[in-house]
Amino acid sequence: MLKRLLLSLTLAGSIAAGAPAIGETDPLASWNDGAAKARIVAFVKATTEKGGKDHVAPADRIAVFDNDGTLWSEQPMYFQLAFAIDRVRALAPQHPEWKTKQPFKAALAGDMKTLAASGEHGLVELIMATHAGNTADEFAQAVRDWAKTARHPKFNRPYTELTFKPMRELLDYLRANGFRTYIVSGGGIEFLRVFAEELYGVPPEQVIGSSIKTKYELRDGKPAIVRLPEIDFIDDRAGKPVGIHKFIGKRPVAAFGNSDGDFEMLEWTTSAPGARLGLIVHHDDEVREYAYDRKSPIGKLDRGLDEAGRRGWLVVSMKNDWRTVYAPPR
Amino acid sequence: MLKRLLLSLTLAGSIAAGAPAIGETDPLASWNDGAAKARIVAFVKATTEKGGKDHVAPADRIAVFDNDGTLWSEQPMYFQLAFAIDRVRALAPQHPEWKTKQPFKAALAGDMKTLAASGEHGLVELIMATHAGNTADEFAQAVRDWAKTARHPKFNRPYTELTFKPMRELLDYLRANGFRTYIVSGGGIEFLRVFAEELYGVPPEQVIGSSIKTKYELRDGKPAIVRLPEIDFIDDRAGKPVGIHKFIGKRPVAAFGNSDGDFEMLEWTTSAPGARLGLIVHHDDEVREYAYDRKSPIGKLDRGLDEAGRRGWLVVSMKNDWRTVYAPPR
Repeated sequence: MLKRLLLSLTLAGSIAAGAPAIGETDPLASWNDGAAKARIVAFVKATTEKGGKDHVAPADRIAVFDNDGTLWSEQPMYFQLAFAIDRVRALAPQHPEWKTKQPFKAALAGDMKTLAASGEHGLVELIMATHAGNTADEFAQAVRDWAKTARHPKFNRPYTELTFKPMRELLDYLRANGFRTYIVSGGGIEFLRVFAEELYGVPPEQVIGSSIKTKYELRDGKPAIVRLPEIDFIDDRAGKPVGIHKFIGKRPVAAFGNSDGDFEMLEWTTSAPGARLGLIVHHDDEVREYAYDRKSPIGKLDRGLDEAGRRGWLVVSMKNDWRTVYAPPR
Repeated sequence: MLKRLLLSLTLAGSIAAGAPAIGETDPLASWNDGAAKARIVAFVKATTEKGGKDHVAPADRIAVFDNDGTLWSEQPMYFQLAFAIDRVRALAPQHPEWKTKQPFKAALAGDMKTLAASGEHGLVELIMATHAGNTADEFAQAVRDWAKTARHPKFNRPYTELTFKPMRELLDYLRANGFRTYIVSGGGIEFLRVFAEELYGVPPEQVIGSSIKTKYELRDGKPAIVRLPEIDFIDDRAGKPVGIHKFIGKRPVAAFGNSDGDFEMLEWTTSAPGARLGLIVHHDDEVREYAYDRKSPIGKLDRGLDEAGRRGWLVVSMKNDWRTVYAPPR
């Protein structure tokens, strides 16, 4: 928000001074000049230019962003999984049975191989034990508390500092041009809402994600939203267009992802008539972040790479297209 | 939107002319002067006055409105049920078995008594047969087509003309004061989204309602959202706070309803600290609309009437507090 305000002040100032309005401050300063950046700028110009053939009314300027691997890192494991494992440790004293019961035993031992071997069933069990049973307020507080102390194993920085500066600029740039920016994540909606406003300028009502069921009840006479150990909705793959339709009720004009989990979201967005932008962040930067795609169990990008060309999707090279990877703390 | 624009122009004009900013144009002109109107105005002043003890930041100014019976009429049956019955008639040629099968036989005959006797199971069957199986776009078109020709049995006007003028003014008034207005309806989200923007100035992403499941699939190579004959979410009673939490992720500061189906939404909204407004529209106007409350199967208002006093909820008398009931076509 601050950056956007500064930008508009700068532009207003330069207009008032009779200087060229554009050029002094580059809203996409962390993007190297090149085809990727040019394509983004051209899309925004085409969709916002009054009277242009690809003009999109402000009410329809909807841009959807995946989160894990698109707005922040996702290696060596989804940050929410790191939270779940840390929470198993925090809750372990109340669950002595976890010492011998999988997948909790593996989580407590940091034995990722056994944890992975527990499969989807094991992961769901882990999530339910660490994400349900409390109220929504209590859960949000647990996430906030965790984020204050947890550190990423490779970078030794808070997870919340590992957001991508070029993508944050892109969010700001789109909003400055009248787009509403939504996050559409395979991760948990209530986990992400804790961070989305501060990190990305995206308010809670513009965060869509996977969810567990909740119920409304009086606890000690006070109304509360209580989190239940039951899957409500998986906002991944073909679930992403479903989530978008449910929450927004409109088809986006721009979609940003990084894995095959975003394939259907990009397909849904870009197969409608008119100017559309589909963008895939390709993690090919082992030095500054990670390099992975077709063979990675996390953030697998295979079909997307194969089909990006014929579908007109822009594949962004983290290594070549980004001047900077991580943003400074906000 | 037009009204809001005109209002702001009027205010701007009167400020420029040095005249008092308030008073010339009453944004709540369809409300009789009295305690109800004064309470609404006082709430808006308290929550928007800078530096006031009850000031609410613009991002938190969230107001939630029930639809049936609160924003438009709901007698002698929910308008969506009228749509479902008309749609049974429209689809009947493709379903010869409906001639002898309940609840379809009753719907075709207009036999409301037998239809009601088919109970919740019968109604769900009716809704699934008339609301599922097609794509989201096809469904929206069917609703639009229906609204063009269907007429309300008592007033012989299109259903879409039976919105409440005082409530539309209230929506505009709140928005002019920085509130975001949401509809939180027990009715179907996709049914309501067809009308919400035009009738109430509420965009699709601010409509929350009951839903059936959908799936994303390619139909003849084109992506589509397909509606499935399975309940996804019932946005009524204790489901309303759940829906609000899921879609908005914040607790509202004002809630507007008319029946006990809105009780938990009002409770959730008004039991938080700070200035809160809970309002119940009481249908006591047999001449201009309908009179019903404790004993009505549709829009039953019983517990709400009993508890409004001690909970500080404002009960609005349609007969005494509203100068006008229906708005002219927009």
